[in-house]
Amino acid sequence: MFETVKNRRTIRKYLPKDINPSLLNDLLETSFRASTMGGMQLYSVIVTRDAEMKEKLSPAHFNQPMVKNAPVVLTFCADFRRFSKWCEQRKAVPGYDNLMSFMNASMDTLLVAQTFCTLAEEAGLGICYLGTTTYNPQMIIDTLQLPELVFPLTTITVGYPDGIPAQVDRLPLEAAVHDEKYHDYTPEEIDKLYAYKESLPENKQFIEENKKETLAQVFTDVRYTKKDNEFMSENLLKVLRQQGFLK
Amino acid sequence: MFETVKNRRTIRKYLPKDINPSLLNDLLETSFRASTMGGMQLYSVIVTRDAEMKEKLSPAHFNQPMVKNAPVVLTFCADFRRFSKWCEQRKAVPGYDNLMSFMNASMDTLLVAQTFCTLAEEAGLGICYLGTTTYNPQMIIDTLQLPELVFPLTTITVGYPDGIPAQVDRLPLEAAVHDEKYHDYTPEEIDKLYAYKESLPENKQFIEENKKETLAQVFTDVRYTKKDNEFMSENLLKVLRQQGFLK
Repeated sequence: MFETVKNRRTIRKYLPKDINPSLLNDLLETSFRASTMGGMQLYSVIVTRDAEMKEKLSPAHFNQPMVKNAPVVLTFCADFRRFSKWCEQRKAVPGYDNLMSFMNASMDTLLVAQTFCTLAEEAGLGICYLGTTTYNPQMIIDTLQLPELVFPLTTITVGYPDGIPAQVDRLPLEAAVHDEKYHDYTPEEIDKLYAYKESLPENKQFIEENKKETLAQVFTDVRYTKKDNEFMSENLLKVLRQQGFLK
Repeated sequence: MFETVKNRRTIRKYLPKDINPSLLNDLLETSFRASTMGGMQLYSVIVTRDAEMKEKLSPAHFNQPMVKNAPVVLTFCADFRRFSKWCEQRKAVPGYDNLMSFMNASMDTLLVAQTFCTLAEEAGLGICYLGTTTYNPQMIIDTLQLPELVFPLTTITVGYPDGIPAQVDRLPLEAAVHDEKYHDYTPEEIDKLYAYKESLPENKQFIEENKKETLAQVFTDVRYTKKDNEFMSENLLKVLRQQGFLK
Protein backbone atom coordinates (compact mmCIF):
# COMPACT_ATOMS: atom_id res chain seq x y z
CA MET A 1 0.00 0.00 0.00
CA PHE A 2 2.98 2.26 0.70
CA GLU A 3 4.02 1.71 -2.90
CA THR A 4 0.55 2.64 -4.19
CA VAL A 5 0.65 5.96 -2.37
CA LYS A 6 4.31 6.62 -3.18
CA ASN A 7 3.70 6.05 -6.89
CA ARG A 8 0.33 7.70 -7.14
CA ARG A 9 -0.63 10.19 -9.82
CA THR A 10 -3.80 12.15 -10.34
CA ILE A 11 -5.63 10.46 -13.22
CA ARG A 12 -7.57 12.70 -15.58
CA LYS A 13 -8.16 10.27 -18.46
CA TYR A 14 -10.20 7.12 -18.02
CA LEU A 15 -10.80 3.99 -20.06
CA PRO A 16 -14.38 3.53 -21.29
CA LYS A 17 -14.90 0.83 -18.66
CA ASP A 18 -17.52 0.92 -15.96
CA ILE A 19 -16.84 0.48 -12.25
CA ASN A 20 -18.69 -2.52 -10.91
CA PRO A 21 -21.36 -1.22 -8.50
CA SER A 22 -20.43 -3.79 -5.86
CA LEU A 23 -16.78 -2.69 -6.00
CA LEU A 24 -17.84 0.94 -5.64
CA ASN A 25 -20.07 0.09 -2.69
CA ASP A 26 -17.30 -1.90 -1.06
CA LEU A 27 -14.88 1.03 -1.45
CA LEU A 28 -17.41 3.46 -0.02
CA GLU A 29 -18.42 1.21 2.86
CA THR A 30 -14.78 0.60 3.77
CA SER A 31 -14.00 4.32 3.59
CA PHE A 32 -16.75 4.95 6.15
CA ARG A 33 -14.48 3.25 8.70
CA ALA A 34 -12.45 6.48 8.71
CA SER A 35 -12.42 8.38 12.00
CA THR A 36 -15.58 10.43 12.55
CA MET A 37 -16.34 12.93 15.29
CA GLY A 38 -18.28 11.23 18.07
CA GLY A 39 -19.30 8.51 15.61
CA MET A 40 -21.72 10.98 14.01
CA GLN A 41 -20.71 10.32 10.37
CA LEU A 42 -21.37 13.87 9.21
CA TYR A 43 -21.24 13.26 5.47
CA SER A 44 -23.15 12.15 2.40
CA VAL A 45 -21.82 11.01 -0.95
CA ILE A 46 -23.76 11.61 -4.15
CA VAL A 47 -22.92 9.06 -6.84
CA THR A 48 -23.28 10.33 -10.41
CA ARG A 49 -23.25 7.75 -13.21
CA ASP A 50 -26.02 9.15 -15.42
CA ALA A 51 -24.72 10.96 -18.53
CA GLU A 52 -27.37 13.65 -18.30
CA MET A 53 -26.45 14.40 -14.69
CA LYS A 54 -22.77 14.62 -15.61
CA GLU A 55 -23.74 17.07 -18.36
CA LYS A 56 -25.53 19.20 -15.79
CA LEU A 57 -22.64 19.09 -13.30
CA SER A 58 -20.02 19.88 -15.92
CA PRO A 59 -20.34 23.70 -16.03
CA ALA A 60 -20.00 23.89 -12.22
CA HIS A 61 -16.58 22.34 -12.75
CA PHE A 62 -15.62 24.76 -15.54
CA ASN A 63 -16.32 21.96 -18.05
CA GLN A 64 -13.19 20.03 -17.10
CA PRO A 65 -13.43 16.93 -19.31
CA MET A 66 -13.04 14.47 -16.41
CA VAL A 67 -16.63 15.03 -15.30
CA LYS A 68 -18.14 13.73 -18.53
CA ASN A 69 -15.46 11.13 -19.23
CA ALA A 70 -15.21 9.40 -15.86
CA PRO A 71 -17.59 6.47 -15.33
CA VAL A 72 -18.31 7.71 -11.80
CA VAL A 73 -18.36 11.18 -10.29
CA LEU A 74 -18.63 11.42 -6.50
CA THR A 75 -19.68 14.60 -4.71
CA PHE A 76 -18.69 14.47 -1.05
CA CYS A 77 -20.92 16.66 1.10
CA ALA A 78 -20.71 17.83 4.70
CA ASP A 79 -24.06 16.65 6.11
CA PHE A 80 -25.54 17.57 9.49
CA ARG A 81 -29.05 17.05 8.17
CA ARG A 82 -29.41 13.31 8.76
CA PHE A 83 -28.05 13.60 12.28
CA SER A 84 -30.23 16.63 13.06
CA LYS A 85 -33.33 14.84 11.76
CA TRP A 86 -32.56 11.92 14.03
CA CYS A 87 -32.22 14.31 16.99
CA GLU A 88 -35.55 15.92 16.23
CA GLN A 89 -37.24 12.53 16.09
CA ARG A 90 -35.75 11.64 19.48
CA LYS A 91 -36.89 14.61 21.58
CA ALA A 92 -33.46 16.22 21.25
CA VAL A 93 -32.81 19.78 20.04
CA PRO A 94 -29.95 19.84 17.49
CA GLY A 95 -27.63 22.86 17.56
CA TYR A 96 -25.60 22.29 14.42
CA ASP A 97 -26.55 25.25 12.24
CA ASN A 98 -23.26 27.05 12.86
CA LEU A 99 -19.70 27.40 11.58
CA MET A 100 -18.14 25.05 14.15
CA SER A 101 -20.51 22.29 13.11
CA PHE A 102 -19.75 22.96 9.46
CA MET A 103 -16.04 22.60 10.23
CA ASN A 104 -16.62 19.35 12.11
CA ALA A 105 -18.73 17.94 9.28
CA SER A 106 -16.14 19.09 6.74
CA MET A 107 -13.40 17.18 8.53
CA ASP A 108 -15.47 14.01 8.69
CA THR A 109 -16.24 14.36 4.99
CA LEU A 110 -12.68 14.92 3.82
CA LEU A 111 -11.37 12.01 5.89
CA VAL A 112 -13.84 9.73 4.15
CA ALA A 113 -13.10 11.20 0.71
CA GLN A 114 -9.38 10.64 1.12
CA THR A 115 -9.77 7.13 2.52
CA PHE A 116 -11.95 6.35 -0.49
CA CYS A 117 -9.21 7.63 -2.83
CA THR A 118 -6.46 5.57 -1.23
CA LEU A 119 -8.63 2.43 -1.38
CA ALA A 120 -9.68 3.13 -4.97
CA GLU A 121 -6.07 3.53 -6.06
CA GLU A 122 -5.12 0.32 -4.28
CA ALA A 123 -7.90 -1.35 -6.30
CA GLY A 124 -6.36 -0.14 -9.57
CA LEU A 125 -8.61 2.86 -10.13
CA GLY A 126 -7.46 6.42 -10.70
CA ILE A 127 -8.94 9.55 -9.14
CA CYS A 128 -8.95 13.29 -9.63
CA TYR A 129 -10.07 15.84 -7.03
CA LEU A 130 -11.99 18.79 -8.44
CA GLY A 131 -11.35 21.88 -6.36
CA THR A 132 -14.08 23.63 -8.29
CA THR A 133 -16.81 22.25 -6.01
CA THR A 134 -16.50 25.10 -3.50
CA TYR A 135 -16.08 27.66 -6.29
CA ASN A 136 -19.55 27.05 -7.68
CA PRO A 137 -21.41 25.36 -4.83
CA GLN A 138 -24.80 26.76 -5.82
CA MET A 139 -24.87 25.05 -9.21
CA ILE A 140 -24.03 21.75 -7.55
CA ILE A 141 -26.59 22.26 -4.80
CA ASP A 142 -29.27 22.88 -7.42
CA THR A 143 -28.29 19.95 -9.62
CA LEU A 144 -27.96 17.42 -6.82
CA GLN A 145 -30.87 18.92 -4.84
CA LEU A 146 -28.92 19.36 -1.65
CA PRO A 147 -31.16 20.57 1.20
CA GLU A 148 -30.32 22.64 4.32
CA LEU A 149 -27.36 21.46 6.41
CA VAL A 150 -25.83 19.73 3.41
CA PHE A 151 -22.89 21.39 1.62
CA PRO A 152 -20.80 20.09 -1.32
CA LEU A 153 -17.13 20.13 -0.34
CA THR A 154 -15.26 18.25 -2.98
CA THR A 155 -15.80 16.14 -6.06
CA ILE A 156 -13.81 13.13 -7.15
CA THR A 157 -13.86 11.64 -10.63
CA VAL A 158 -13.05 7.93 -10.64
CA GLY A 159 -12.27 5.38 -13.33
CA TYR A 160 -9.72 2.97 -14.74
CA PRO A 161 -6.63 4.94 -15.86
CA ASP A 162 -6.14 5.52 -19.56
CA GLY A 163 -2.36 5.89 -19.45
CA ILE A 164 -0.06 6.82 -16.59
CA PRO A 165 1.05 10.47 -16.60
CA ALA A 166 4.39 11.60 -15.18
CA GLN A 167 4.46 12.05 -11.44
CA VAL A 168 4.41 15.69 -10.33
CA ASP A 169 6.93 17.17 -7.93
CA ARG A 170 6.66 17.72 -4.20
CA LEU A 171 8.63 20.02 -1.93
CA PRO A 172 11.33 18.36 0.18
CA LEU A 173 9.99 16.79 3.39
CA GLU A 174 11.51 19.47 5.62
CA ALA A 175 9.45 22.15 3.87
CA ALA A 176 6.30 21.07 5.70
CA VAL A 177 7.53 19.31 8.86
CA HIS A 178 8.38 21.30 11.97
CA ASP A 179 10.11 19.97 15.05
CA GLU A 180 8.27 20.92 18.29
CA LYS A 181 7.53 24.49 17.16
CA TYR A 182 6.75 26.25 13.91
CA HIS A 183 10.00 27.21 12.33
CA ASP A 184 9.37 30.30 10.23
CA TYR A 185 11.06 30.42 6.83
CA THR A 186 14.03 32.65 6.05
CA PRO A 187 14.37 33.99 2.49
CA GLU A 188 17.30 31.60 1.96
CA GLU A 189 15.21 28.64 3.04
CA ILE A 190 12.39 29.61 0.70
CA ASP A 191 14.89 29.82 -2.18
CA LYS A 192 16.22 26.38 -1.32
CA LEU A 193 12.86 24.67 -0.80
CA TYR A 194 11.41 25.92 -4.10
CA ALA A 195 14.60 25.50 -6.18
CA TYR A 196 13.73 22.06 -7.53
CA LYS A 197 10.18 23.06 -8.49
CA GLU A 198 11.52 26.15 -10.25
CA SER A 199 14.14 24.13 -12.11
CA LEU A 200 11.65 21.82 -13.82
CA PRO A 201 11.32 22.29 -17.62
CA GLU A 202 7.51 21.98 -17.42
CA ASN A 203 7.38 24.83 -14.94
CA LYS A 204 9.67 26.99 -17.04
CA GLN A 205 7.36 26.33 -19.98
CA PHE A 206 4.41 27.27 -17.79
CA ILE A 207 5.97 30.70 -17.16
CA GLU A 208 6.56 31.22 -20.85
CA GLU A 209 3.07 30.12 -21.93
CA ASN A 210 1.55 32.55 -19.45
CA LYS A 211 3.98 35.31 -20.40
CA LYS A 212 5.09 35.82 -16.80
CA GLU A 213 8.43 36.50 -15.19
CA THR A 214 8.25 33.95 -12.35
CA LEU A 215 6.38 30.72 -11.59
CA ALA A 216 4.81 32.32 -8.53
CA GLN A 217 3.24 34.96 -10.79
CA VAL A 218 1.47 32.22 -12.74
CA PHE A 219 -0.24 31.30 -9.47
CA THR A 220 -1.03 34.80 -8.21
CA ASP A 221 -1.91 36.41 -11.56
CA VAL A 222 -3.51 33.53 -13.48
CA ARG A 223 -4.45 30.42 -11.55
CA TYR A 224 -5.40 31.58 -8.02
CA THR A 225 -5.87 35.32 -8.06
CA LYS A 226 -6.69 37.56 -5.12
CA LYS A 227 -9.72 38.88 -6.98
CA ASP A 228 -11.15 35.42 -7.64
CA ASN A 229 -10.43 34.28 -4.09
CA GLU A 230 -12.16 37.29 -2.61
CA PHE A 231 -15.17 36.89 -4.87
CA MET A 232 -15.41 33.19 -4.01
CA SER A 233 -14.99 33.88 -0.29
CA GLU A 234 -18.02 36.17 -0.37
CA ASN A 235 -19.95 33.60 -2.33
CA LEU A 236 -18.94 30.84 0.07
CA LEU A 237 -20.30 32.81 3.02
CA LYS A 238 -23.53 33.47 1.15
CA VAL A 239 -24.08 29.81 0.27
CA LEU A 240 -23.05 28.61 3.74
CA ARG A 241 -25.68 30.95 5.18
CA GLN A 242 -28.28 29.72 2.72
CA GLN A 243 -27.56 26.08 3.54
CA GLY A 244 -28.14 26.89 7.21
CA PHE A 245 -24.59 26.75 8.56
CA LEU A 246 -24.29 30.39 9.70
CA LYS A 247 -27.43 30.85 11.78
CA MET B 1 -4.73 -2.61 2.96
CA PHE B 2 -8.48 -3.06 2.58
CA GLU B 3 -8.36 -5.30 5.64
CA THR B 4 -6.40 -2.70 7.63
CA VAL B 5 -9.06 -0.08 6.96
CA LYS B 6 -11.98 -2.50 7.45
CA ASN B 7 -10.64 -3.62 10.81
CA ARG B 8 -9.41 -0.30 12.05
CA ARG B 9 -10.14 1.11 15.49
CA THR B 10 -9.22 4.41 17.04
CA ILE B 11 -6.36 3.71 19.45
CA ARG B 12 -6.26 5.74 22.65
CA LYS B 13 -3.74 3.68 24.66
CA TYR B 14 -0.15 3.24 23.51
CA LEU B 15 2.74 1.03 24.49
CA PRO B 16 5.74 2.89 25.97
CA LYS B 17 7.63 2.39 22.72
CA ASP B 18 9.00 5.15 20.58
CA ILE B 19 8.33 5.59 16.89
CA ASN B 20 11.54 5.43 14.91
CA PRO B 21 12.17 8.90 13.43
CA SER B 22 12.96 7.47 10.00
CA LEU B 23 9.65 5.54 10.00
CA LEU B 24 7.80 8.70 10.98
CA ASN B 25 9.54 10.68 8.24
CA ASP B 26 8.77 8.00 5.70
CA LEU B 27 5.09 8.03 6.68
CA LEU B 28 4.95 11.83 6.47
CA GLU B 29 6.83 12.03 3.19
CA THR B 30 4.60 9.38 1.63
CA SER B 31 1.46 11.12 2.89
CA PHE B 32 2.58 14.29 1.09
CA ARG B 33 1.85 12.43 -2.17
CA ALA B 34 -1.85 13.04 -1.43
CA SER B 35 -3.65 15.29 -3.89
CA THR B 36 -2.99 18.98 -3.31
CA MET B 37 -4.60 21.98 -4.97
CA GLY B 38 -2.43 23.18 -7.84
CA GLY B 39 0.53 21.37 -6.27
CA MET B 40 0.71 24.13 -3.66
CA GLN B 41 0.98 21.83 -0.59
CA LEU B 42 -0.89 24.16 1.73
CA TYR B 43 -0.05 22.48 5.03
CA SER B 44 2.50 22.15 7.80
CA VAL B 45 2.83 19.40 10.38
CA ILE B 46 4.21 20.12 13.84
CA VAL B 47 5.79 17.05 15.43
CA THR B 48 5.64 16.95 19.23
CA ARG B 49 7.82 14.39 21.02
CA ASP B 50 9.07 16.50 23.92
CA ALA B 51 7.32 15.74 27.25
CA GLU B 52 7.23 19.39 28.25
CA MET B 53 5.57 20.38 24.98
CA LYS B 54 2.96 17.63 25.42
CA GLU B 55 2.30 18.97 28.91
CA LYS B 56 1.71 22.42 27.44
CA LEU B 57 -0.56 21.12 24.67
CA SER B 58 -2.58 18.93 26.99
CA PRO B 59 -5.03 21.54 28.38
CA ALA B 60 -5.94 22.65 24.84
CA HIS B 61 -7.15 19.08 24.34
CA PHE B 62 -9.13 19.04 27.61
CA ASN B 63 -6.34 16.96 29.17
CA GLN B 64 -7.29 13.86 27.21
CA PRO B 65 -4.63 11.34 28.32
CA MET B 66 -3.59 10.44 24.76
CA VAL B 67 -1.64 13.68 24.40
CA LYS B 68 0.79 12.88 27.19
CA ASN B 69 0.85 9.12 26.65
CA ALA B 70 1.43 8.93 22.91
CA PRO B 71 5.07 8.92 21.80
CA VAL B 72 4.21 11.34 19.00
CA VAL B 73 1.59 14.07 18.70
CA LEU B 74 1.08 15.64 15.28
CA THR B 75 -0.66 18.95 14.77
CA PHE B 76 -1.77 19.36 11.16
CA CYS B 77 -2.05 23.01 10.15
CA ALA B 78 -3.50 24.76 7.14
CA ASP B 79 -0.55 26.82 5.90
CA PHE B 80 -0.64 29.53 3.25
CA ARG B 81 2.37 31.25 4.80
CA ARG B 82 5.16 29.32 3.10
CA PHE B 83 3.53 29.69 -0.31
CA SER B 84 2.81 33.40 0.24
CA LYS B 85 6.41 34.02 1.32
CA TRP B 86 7.60 32.36 -1.86
CA CYS B 87 5.28 34.57 -3.91
CA GLU B 88 6.57 37.71 -2.21
CA GLN B 89 10.16 36.70 -2.94
CA ARG B 90 9.28 36.18 -6.62
CA LYS B 91 7.69 39.54 -7.47
CA ALA B 92 4.21 38.03 -7.12
CA VAL B 93 1.43 39.45 -4.92
CA PRO B 94 -0.26 36.65 -2.92
CA GLY B 95 -4.02 36.95 -2.33
CA TYR B 96 -4.59 34.14 0.15
CA ASP B 97 -5.71 35.99 3.27
CA ASN B 98 -9.35 35.02 2.82
CA LEU B 99 -11.91 32.32 3.62
CA MET B 100 -11.70 30.57 0.25
CA SER B 101 -7.95 30.15 0.67
CA PHE B 102 -8.46 28.86 4.20
CA MET B 103 -10.90 26.28 2.83
CA ASN B 104 -8.46 25.24 0.13
CA ALA B 105 -5.61 24.91 2.62
CA SER B 106 -7.88 22.99 4.99
CA MET B 107 -8.69 20.44 2.32
CA ASP B 108 -5.03 19.94 1.44
CA THR B 109 -4.23 19.51 5.12
CA LEU B 110 -6.94 16.98 5.91
CA LEU B 111 -6.10 14.89 2.85
CA VAL B 112 -2.53 14.61 4.09
CA ALA B 113 -3.61 13.92 7.68
CA GLN B 114 -5.87 11.09 6.61
CA THR B 115 -3.31 9.59 4.22
CA PHE B 116 -0.84 9.65 7.08
CA CYS B 117 -3.31 7.78 9.31
CA THR B 118 -4.00 5.04 6.76
CA LEU B 119 -0.26 4.56 6.19
CA ALA B 120 0.48 4.57 9.93
CA GLU B 121 -2.16 1.92 10.57
CA GLU B 122 -0.81 -0.19 7.75
CA ALA B 123 2.60 0.05 9.48
CA GLY B 124 1.11 -1.32 12.73
CA LEU B 125 0.64 1.99 14.53
CA GLY B 126 -2.59 3.24 16.05
CA ILE B 127 -3.97 6.75 15.81
CA CYS B 128 -6.54 8.98 17.46
CA TYR B 129 -7.92 12.23 16.01
CA LEU B 130 -8.45 15.00 18.54
CA GLY B 131 -11.37 17.17 17.49
CA THR B 132 -10.42 19.59 20.25
CA THR B 133 -7.85 21.37 18.06
CA THR B 134 -10.43 23.75 16.58
CA TYR B 135 -12.14 24.20 19.96
CA ASN B 136 -9.09 25.81 21.54
CA PRO B 137 -7.00 26.97 18.58
CA GLN B 138 -5.49 29.92 20.43
CA MET B 139 -3.78 27.78 23.07
CA ILE B 140 -2.27 25.64 20.33
CA ILE B 141 -1.22 28.65 18.28
CA ASP B 142 0.58 30.08 21.30
CA THR B 143 2.25 26.83 22.28
CA LEU B 144 3.42 25.89 18.79
CA GLN B 145 4.12 29.53 17.84
CA LEU B 146 2.00 29.47 14.70
CA PRO B 147 2.33 32.72 12.74
CA GLU B 148 -0.13 34.44 10.38
CA LEU B 149 -1.66 32.30 7.62
CA VAL B 150 -1.11 29.14 9.66
CA PHE B 151 -4.07 27.56 11.46
CA PRO B 152 -4.20 24.32 13.51
CA LEU B 153 -6.92 22.08 12.09
CA THR B 154 -6.57 18.72 13.70
CA THR B 155 -4.27 16.77 15.98
CA ILE B 156 -3.38 13.10 15.75
CA THR B 157 -1.82 11.08 18.54
CA VAL B 158 0.22 8.15 17.25
CA GLY B 159 1.84 5.12 18.84
CA TYR B 160 1.96 1.35 19.01
CA PRO B 161 -1.41 0.07 20.28
CA ASP B 162 -1.64 -1.11 23.87
CA GLY B 163 -4.55 -3.50 23.34
CA ILE B 164 -7.20 -3.60 20.66
CA PRO B 165 -10.55 -2.08 21.68
CA ALA B 166 -13.88 -3.25 20.26
CA GLN B 167 -14.75 -1.81 16.88
CA VAL B 168 -17.42 0.88 17.04
CA ASP B 169 -20.57 0.82 14.90
CA ARG B 170 -21.27 2.55 11.62
CA LEU B 171 -24.57 3.37 9.96
CA PRO B 172 -25.59 1.10 7.09
CA LEU B 173 -24.01 2.08 3.76
CA GLU B 174 -27.28 3.42 2.34
CA ALA B 175 -27.45 6.01 5.12
CA ALA B 176 -24.76 8.13 3.49
CA VAL B 177 -24.83 7.17 -0.20
CA HIS B 178 -27.24 8.84 -2.60
CA ASP B 179 -27.93 7.75 -6.13
CA GLU B 180 -27.76 10.69 -8.60
CA LYS B 181 -29.61 13.12 -6.31
CA TYR B 182 -29.83 13.73 -2.58
CA HIS B 183 -32.57 11.54 -1.26
CA ASP B 184 -34.02 13.27 1.80
CA TYR B 185 -34.80 11.05 4.79
CA THR B 186 -38.34 10.13 5.81
CA PRO B 187 -39.02 9.61 9.54
CA GLU B 188 -39.31 5.88 8.87
CA GLU B 189 -35.91 5.81 7.18
CA ILE B 190 -34.30 7.65 10.09
CA ASP B 191 -35.78 5.09 12.48
CA LYS B 192 -34.43 2.26 10.40
CA LEU B 193 -30.96 3.71 9.83
CA TYR B 194 -30.36 4.45 13.52
CA ALA B 195 -32.01 1.27 14.90
CA TYR B 196 -28.81 -0.73 15.18
CA LYS B 197 -26.88 2.09 16.88
CA GLU B 198 -29.74 2.53 19.35
CA SER B 199 -29.90 -1.19 20.07
CA LEU B 200 -26.30 -1.46 21.28
CA PRO B 201 -25.87 -2.12 25.02
CA GLU B 202 -23.03 0.40 25.29
CA ASN B 203 -25.28 3.11 23.90
CA LYS B 204 -28.11 2.19 26.25
CA GLN B 205 -25.63 2.46 29.10
CA PHE B 206 -24.53 5.83 27.76
CA ILE B 207 -28.12 7.10 28.06
CA GLU B 208 -28.39 5.82 31.61
CA GLU B 209 -25.05 7.25 32.76
CA ASN B 210 -26.03 10.63 31.43
CA LYS B 211 -29.55 10.38 32.86
CA LYS B 212 -31.16 11.08 29.49
CA GLU B 213 -34.19 9.70 27.73
CA THR B 214 -32.67 9.11 24.28
CA LEU B 215 -29.20 8.62 22.80
CA ALA B 216 -29.67 11.73 20.66
CA GLN B 217 -30.10 13.77 23.84
CA VAL B 218 -26.67 12.65 25.03
CA PHE B 219 -25.29 14.32 21.91
CA THR B 220 -27.38 17.50 21.96
CA ASP B 221 -27.42 18.07 25.75
CA VAL B 222 -24.03 16.75 26.84
CA ARG B 223 -21.46 16.07 24.15
CA TYR B 224 -22.10 18.59 21.36
CA THR B 225 -24.40 21.29 22.67
CA LYS B 226 -25.81 24.23 20.74
CA LYS B 227 -24.39 26.61 23.34
CA ASP B 228 -20.85 25.22 23.04
CA ASN B 229 -21.04 25.11 19.26
CA GLU B 230 -22.17 28.72 19.07
CA PHE B 231 -19.47 29.85 21.46
CA MET B 232 -16.82 27.96 19.51
CA SER B 233 -18.10 29.30 16.18
CA GLU B 234 -17.61 32.87 17.41
CA ASN B 235 -14.17 31.97 18.69
CA LEU B 236 -13.27 30.27 15.42
CA LEU B 237 -14.13 33.43 13.48
CA LYS B 238 -12.08 35.51 15.88
CA VAL B 239 -9.00 33.30 15.61
CA LEU B 240 -9.34 32.93 11.83
CA ARG B 241 -9.34 36.73 11.59
CA GLN B 242 -6.33 36.98 13.89
CA GLN B 243 -4.39 34.42 11.82
CA GLY B 244 -5.07 36.54 8.75
CA PHE B 245 -7.62 34.38 6.94
CA LEU B 246 -10.54 36.86 7.00
CA LYS B 247 -8.98 40.02 5.65
